[in-house]
Amino acid sequence: MTSPLPGVSDLAKLPLDSMDLSRQYAETLDGQDQIGHFRARFHIPDETLLYFDGNSLGRLPLATRERLRDAIDREWGHELIRGWDSWIDLARTAGDVLAEGVLHVSPGEVVLSDSSSVNLFKLAAAALDARPGRRVIVTDDDNFPTDRYILEGLAAARGLELRVVATDIDAGVDADAIARHLGEDVALVCLSHVAYRSGAIADMVAITTAAHRVGALTLWDLCHSAGAVAVPLRESGADLAVGCTYKYLNAGPGAPAFLYVRRDLQAALRQPIWGWFGQRDQFAMGAGYDPVESVERFLVGTPPVLGGYAVLEGARITAEAGIGALAAKSAGLTRYCIRLNDEWLGERLALATPRDDGRRGSHVTFGHPDAWQLCQALKAAGVIPDFRTPDRLRIGLAPLYTRYTDVHDGMAKLRDIVLSGSYRDFAPERGRVT
Amino acid sequence: MTSPLPGVSDLAKLPLDSMDLSRQYAETLDGQDQIGHFRARFHIPDETLLYFDGNSLGRLPLATRERLRDAIDREWGHELIRGWDSWIDLARTAGDVLAEGVLHVSPGEVVLSDSSSVNLFKLAAAALDARPGRRVIVTDDDNFPTDRYILEGLAAARGLELRVVATDIDAGVDADAIARHLGEDVALVCLSHVAYRSGAIADMVAITTAAHRVGALTLWDLCHSAGAVAVPLRESGADLAVGCTYKYLNAGPGAPAFLYVRRDLQAALRQPIWGWFGQRDQFAMGAGYDPVESVERFLVGTPPVLGGYAVLEGARITAEAGIGALAAKSAGLTRYCIRLNDEWLGERLALATPRDDGRRGSHVTFGHPDAWQLCQALKAAGVIPDFRTPDRLRIGLAPLYTRYTDVHDGMAKLRDIVLSGSYRDFAPERGRVT
Repeated sequence: MTSPLPGVSDLAKLPLDSMDLSRQYAETLDGQDQIGHFRARFHIPDETLLYFDGNSLGRLPLATRERLRDAIDREWGHELIRGWDSWIDLARTAGDVLAEGVLHVSPGEVVLSDSSSVNLFKLAAAALDARPGRRVIVTDDDNFPTDRYILEGLAAARGLELRVVATDIDAGVDADAIARHLGEDVALVCLSHVAYRSGAIADMVAITTAAHRVGALTLWDLCHSAGAVAVPLRESGADLAVGCTYKYLNAGPGAPAFLYVRRDLQAALRQPIWGWFGQRDQFAMGAGYDPVESVERFLVGTPPVLGGYAVLEGARITAEAGIGALAAKSAGLTRYCIRLNDEWLGERLALATPRDDGRRGSHVTFGHPDAWQLCQALKAAGVIPDFRTPDRLRIGLAPLYTRYTDVHDGMAKLRDIVLSGSYRDFAPERGRVT
Repeated sequence: MTSPLPGVSDLAKLPLDSMDLSRQYAETLDGQDQIGHFRARFHIPDETLLYFDGNSLGRLPLATRERLRDAIDREWGHELIRGWDSWIDLARTAGDVLAEGVLHVSPGEVVLSDSSSVNLFKLAAAALDARPGRRVIVTDDDNFPTDRYILEGLAAARGLELRVVATDIDAGVDADAIARHLGEDVALVCLSHVAYRSGAIADMVAITTAAHRVGALTLWDLCHSAGAVAVPLRESGADLAVGCTYKYLNAGPGAPAFLYVRRDLQAALRQPIWGWFGQRDQFAMGAGYDPVESVERFLVGTPPVLGGYAVLEGARITAEAGIGALAAKSAGLTRYCIRLNDEWLGERLALATPRDDGRRGSHVTFGHPDAWQLCQALKAAGVIPDFRTPDRLRIGLAPLYTRYTDVHDGMAKLRDIVLSGSYRDFAPERGRVT
């Protein structure tokens, strides 16, 4: 089920530095796409829509639609309570697919549970308990808001220092800067692997190595990584991770999140929400909390079954395509997007994502004073990107179903909107975009 | 949308003390059932199955099946990220239906979030923070396991005493016993309103009054109450509550739970998991956590959309039937079940649920040394009850779709199984039952 990690050699094969900006050339690239056929595995009711927001909400896999119908009509509707015979292990079954096929760690190191935010809380609290006497949590100011808030709450409750390292929001986390803020007083380093705004990849190996050197634990947010890029959990020796499943894993809105705890840490860590799904011999309903030793000790309450099935199916498709191929295509699509912008718009639209293929996830971000209006103009033209504060336009290019021709056509529309100034017709107000 | 609470007058109308044990009499009772037509609103593919476990997992409403198909195919599949325009307020919209139509409190006092266990953790922690210096949490030894474990974890983390009051597992929580364990050192009293094993209803008014007299807050688990009986949150002045939605609210396996915080307490309480869905101006993604003042401050991460819709539809049907009518039918069904057992089996099957109509929820529990085998024998005969440790057989009689004839037929099968001794053919091993 595992695939080789993408190397420079894979990326070098992509002829994306060609000066050929024609649509025909994009069609040629699609023709060479080894995983292009996975697009047919998704429900795509409107082929005219150019969807560049799979980094917020991925598309609906056909297998998931079928699975959910069966889960609703037959399992819930007909099997009723007997359905739990199948459902009781779903969090672990789906976690094992994520572990082996997506994160390249071992079965038993990943499990579905709660939301990313709740999982971050649980694992950060467990890590802090495992480093008593250390009074500092390190994160960065470009980390995703909920991560910063969760850590802020934990620091406030325990009287700890939340040390927030400044990050260049285009370049992403600077491993050296993080390392300079580490010392023997640091209990936990908590960062995003792929930055939600710039798409920049943090150097997990260098940062984890630096953290371990001072005896700190690391907790990684993989929301923008899982299913899009290789995640070097094993190579780095990372301790803990969380991630959502509704982006590149295509599990649908609000599907349950996952958590990773390195095997050798599991029995020693105890999370603070002592729920019955972590209990040994759960249905004995015993008097005192006595958690299992495995990764299920990080579970809490009754897990969502429909969302769990959606994660299982989404993870299976991802694993089938292989992270190596997906990461190579992510790099190819984003490189092509950057190339088209360079040629067509140049300095009119500032690249806010690393140019180095190995340093970005599967989205490209542009900075523009009127980014909100550009976003609205694109939507009106049948292209769906998203906006991020303060002035960023994100182009998410999910590798399982996005084509090079989509990138060509969408960027051509963006070019026309920018050059014509038609985006100025849209109100500059800001709304909610997830 | 609200209905009058059930009074003795409603229950007195039910002619269930008749000596007539015929099936024809059960048919007469069904004919007089004012909410009998709600059964047609559910997906019931097998009319021969007698389903007595709606107190663990409720049936699938037809409206929910349609809503989920639309949410999956059209909203997720076609609208994609634009679906969030509808989804962003779902936790609150469904919470308001629960508030007005099911719990008879005000809109803005209830919201969907996480699991019951996580909600219990959040609200218990918030309550403890609001009573600094008090060192005791009061619960009872018959409280549902996850509630006890969550409180045990909070007590351990904070160095508090978890004072576990002994409860008779047939009679349920004794308000006087709880009151005797209260003092000025108690921060929080946390109990289930309807006991998961016996179905006994705790006296929320008396216990909340006693708790408030010593300055403690109350937190109620409504998992076995919501949709089955009247919940006197308003009448008692209860402070906090949580509950699941997959039992009598029919929202499906692992659907999101709800939480209740009395309006005047909301702004003063702060829960420990500082997630971005509680943040003021969430998508500004500001530097520090600054929660909204409303009930959404108790939200954490991205909410599950499919489960949220299932709660919305389940709550709507419940509200439409009305808690007054549902509670009256719960009392009627359970009284009829008890009556049949009295006549048919007498002391062979010990009633482990209060006889007083006003003191039990919507399930009847029997104690028997071979309860596990009785449960298996019933399943083999097309009747689905459930088993609870150590020796209890639960007969859940969800009022929205259970008929008096179902009770008659199911109890007749139970009678035959007990009298014939055929249950002894089943192995006495115990498995997992949720």
